[in-house]
Amino acid sequence: MTGGEAGPTKWWGWGDPGRRLRLDPGAQSVLRSKVGPGEPVPPVRLEEVVVPEPRPLPDAIAEIVGRASILDGHEQRVRRAAGRGYPDLIRLRAGRPGQAPDAVVLPGNAEEVAEVLETCLREGVAVVPFGGGTSVVGGVEPDDGGLGVLITLDLRRLRGVEVDRQSLIATLGPGLRGPEAENALRAEGLTLGHFPQSFEYASIGGFAATRSAGQASSGLGRFDEMVTSVRLTTPIGELVTRETPHSAAGPALRELILGSEGALGVITEVSARVRPAPQTRRYEGWVAQGFEAGCEILRSLAQSDFVPAVVRLSDPEETSMSLAFSGQVGIRRAVLDAYLRLRRRAGGCMLILGWEGTREEVERRRALAARALHAGGAVPLGRGAGRAWERTRYDGPYLRDELLDLGYMAETLETAHSWSRLDELYAVVGTAIADELEVQGTPGIVVCHVSHAYRDGASLYFTFIARRRTGAEIEQWHAVKSAACEAIVGAGGTITHHHAVGRDHAPYMVAEVGQPGVEALTAIKERLDPAGIMNPGKLLPRLAASP
Amino acid sequence: MTGGEAGPTKWWGWGDPGRRLRLDPGAQSVLRSKVGPGEPVPPVRLEEVVVPEPRPLPDAIAEIVGRASILDGHEQRVRRAAGRGYPDLIRLRAGRPGQAPDAVVLPGNAEEVAEVLETCLREGVAVVPFGGGTSVVGGVEPDDGGLGVLITLDLRRLRGVEVDRQSLIATLGPGLRGPEAENALRAEGLTLGHFPQSFEYASIGGFAATRSAGQASSGLGRFDEMVTSVRLTTPIGELVTRETPHSAAGPALRELILGSEGALGVITEVSARVRPAPQTRRYEGWVAQGFEAGCEILRSLAQSDFVPAVVRLSDPEETSMSLAFSGQVGIRRAVLDAYLRLRRRAGGCMLILGWEGTREEVERRRALAARALHAGGAVPLGRGAGRAWERTRYDGPYLRDELLDLGYMAETLETAHSWSRLDELYAVVGTAIADELEVQGTPGIVVCHVSHAYRDGASLYFTFIARRRTGAEIEQWHAVKSAACEAIVGAGGTITHHHAVGRDHAPYMVAEVGQPGVEALTAIKERLDPAGIMNPGKLLPRLAASP
Repeated sequence: MTGGEAGPTKWWGWGDPGRRLRLDPGAQSVLRSKVGPGEPVPPVRLEEVVVPEPRPLPDAIAEIVGRASILDGHEQRVRRAAGRGYPDLIRLRAGRPGQAPDAVVLPGNAEEVAEVLETCLREGVAVVPFGGGTSVVGGVEPDDGGLGVLITLDLRRLRGVEVDRQSLIATLGPGLRGPEAENALRAEGLTLGHFPQSFEYASIGGFAATRSAGQASSGLGRFDEMVTSVRLTTPIGELVTRETPHSAAGPALRELILGSEGALGVITEVSARVRPAPQTRRYEGWVAQGFEAGCEILRSLAQSDFVPAVVRLSDPEETSMSLAFSGQVGIRRAVLDAYLRLRRRAGGCMLILGWEGTREEVERRRALAARALHAGGAVPLGRGAGRAWERTRYDGPYLRDELLDLGYMAETLETAHSWSRLDELYAVVGTAIADELEVQGTPGIVVCHVSHAYRDGASLYFTFIARRRTGAEIEQWHAVKSAACEAIVGAGGTITHHHAVGRDHAPYMVAEVGQPGVEALTAIKERLDPAGIMNPGKLLPRLAASP
Repeated sequence: MTGGEAGPTKWWGWGDPGRRLRLDPGAQSVLRSKVGPGEPVPPVRLEEVVVPEPRPLPDAIAEIVGRASILDGHEQRVRRAAGRGYPDLIRLRAGRPGQAPDAVVLPGNAEEVAEVLETCLREGVAVVPFGGGTSVVGGVEPDDGGLGVLITLDLRRLRGVEVDRQSLIATLGPGLRGPEAENALRAEGLTLGHFPQSFEYASIGGFAATRSAGQASSGLGRFDEMVTSVRLTTPIGELVTRETPHSAAGPALRELILGSEGALGVITEVSARVRPAPQTRRYEGWVAQGFEAGCEILRSLAQSDFVPAVVRLSDPEETSMSLAFSGQVGIRRAVLDAYLRLRRRAGGCMLILGWEGTREEVERRRALAARALHAGGAVPLGRGAGRAWERTRYDGPYLRDELLDLGYMAETLETAHSWSRLDELYAVVGTAIADELEVQGTPGIVVCHVSHAYRDGASLYFTFIARRRTGAEIEQWHAVKSAACEAIVGAGGTITHHHAVGRDHAPYMVAEVGQPGVEALTAIKERLDPAGIMNPGKLLPRLAASP
């Protein structure tokens, strides 16, 4: 394993710099007619980015990891200066991330992580654990919590893969990116089956630290549900959970580490259930008569024993937007035609469903689902729509870069609730976003899809696009984001279904878990991280660093 | 809802005093030949039981719940003086429980619970939350933690039932016993599907507080996996988790409350997933060629998509014992004959499998399982064996009372591991128990079954029977229990798969979760329960009560 950079990615945006998803003139004109003209602002050049002068690290750190595993060049620091949320991209593109790690440290194994944390505890150095750096909620923001020096602990060298075939458990290093883990498992005929939109760049450690949900999580489970055990190196020692999670030995510490977002320690190993790589995958499109009818279909599927792996229901607005952007998001001509034949169904909602497994099992489940779909009044669009979705399943963030290039604001947020309160949540959050965009003087497009369906509830994933208030982008974003968050907590939804808490949702944790809940988390934080060095400013409402 | 006693139960043993499972002479003679003669010691009479004089409660408590909801008679105190573990029964039968609550307090709702806890925090009164009182690990032991006064908070009046049919979530009071909850749900055509051996007497709050697993948990999930949200009243306030558990908002506090065993607060409400009551249930018996072959079959079933709801594989010794005790544990003549026809299979292992759901689904899953069973060399015993198991599924504790009456020691303990390390765990724990029984001069019968099978691992449930060292029962038990626990933690198993931690396993929590894990739990405990009033001496290695 080497500590080299994993492929050149945009320092100011998402993924492969050679890959662009240009909006065709038709889509651009739809956008202009709906939200007005964008004001294009290209990103500055890398050398124009302003970051503070690096402060010197304690020598002990270089003694632990070796001088070659400390990176402190301009580019390396800029690349860890922010995550990949909308406000992060705005700041990066403007060349003003505001902060950057003093250095990037690349430990080679869990023992080095432990020694680095001991040193940082002793010397008062803040530590930001870093996997893929894809957080959209400020989860990797280099906030030093007032400690004066900050390192980003990049875990890319921790990429071990070990498989227990009998127990179908893979023990994975936190630095493995999604495709690296899947490739290693595929060689053994296995899969993890976890495919979030950030799959191509996000890391195993990040999946665990943020309770990631992937596109197939409705059927295969969220990442947190796949994890059997986990190792967390904290400033006061290592916390390792038992090999099997099926235990009655008190509160589940595994579930305390999952979602800890680097605020309690560094996840140095994740063991997760794997399964035989599916013989076949089948994705297809349907159109439901409306959002409510579509939700009822999803509910019946999720409450059956044959829920599809992938479940996605767009509301009428997202369905229209997908068609308008079809050149980019891959809804091809044939699919469009099929849809247009159904156009008398005003308010039709696009459904994407996917199955994986043995051929027989996919066939059986698909047939049962088709029965429920027909019974719910949905109309099949065929496999073309499914294939189009599959081809473009990781493209969202590329499209966002394109919209930012065109001078638009483009942001997403997600929440979840029980089925009986989903309608209410859908209504209040959508309205809150649209209303605040109006207040900002930038009326926008607000669309939504159900991204995951469970027996007891479902998630809602909102996307909104508006003109940018040039020079006041962060204020504009903050106002809209706050309105959405207030609406979510007011309706009893969770502040985040799969993006995690990070910097952006920390102020809502009291609403989410109550004061005693925050007290409980704070107590753990203070015990495991007595000097407050671990990822300051994330997860919990801001704490004073203890002496 | 009334606060009356729920049916007369044995104060010195398990369940209905009118129900006995007498061992027939044949079984008694098997027992004598294997472990020697018992020395029958009948329980003392209730009025002979010695408990300390009750100490007076703060008046404020009566002001909150009303005088009629405070019980301090001899019988009421004796009935909460111990749980239902083997050492508890030994002490109760001898009339020397050692301790008892000063009074039993019956709050009428969550608000009263909160007020009582506030008072107890202020006045320094220890509180033992109490549901069914069926703990077999000392979970309800009236240990005052040095505080001087102790109440048992009996939650039987908190028995609300509310159903969200759309979300298939039932919100249940912690005081509901298993059958009460199931009866209320059956009226709505629903079921929780949670049937531990203690089902008839254990409570919903207890299921949640101890991470209960039931006999159908292999297929339907453990109780902790069914819970969607939970309310915990702590001495410093109420912790309520969001309605839906599908969230990325940090560590899962729900998973901190599940398994908290009354040591952090009182669970006042549990919301759990329910499902349509099954159209049909089908249980049947099979015989595997040996324990290893049986485990391989269970593993293949658990790693498929058609794992049965109920899965139970006895080792050869348990299989023989079941047959010897057949009059009692219900393996009837016909089954016995079927088994005897197979007797050339030395070391044959009894398998019980159960399916529930629609007729079609049960048929389909059963057929798939039968294929795996035949492929693994197992031979069907038919539905008679399944019906016999079903008829006697809650009888274990009655049989234990019978063995105690005959003067034997009879104890059970359970653990779990990944499939790849199950053999090792089976060997070392069985050997440790047998060896220590020898050391005690009371060589015994040690038998085991796999009680739950998961994708990644399985649980082992050991039963041992031996002569009693009369007058030194607790020392004898402690020596054997310790040997078993040391073997479990040495092999990396969990110290408890579904009996919980309580008093008996608390010393092993450092081995289970490490020092940082215990630190994390202790930090939460100290924050939520700053005076250490909540269920002292349980869950965590003993802490000094904070001032």
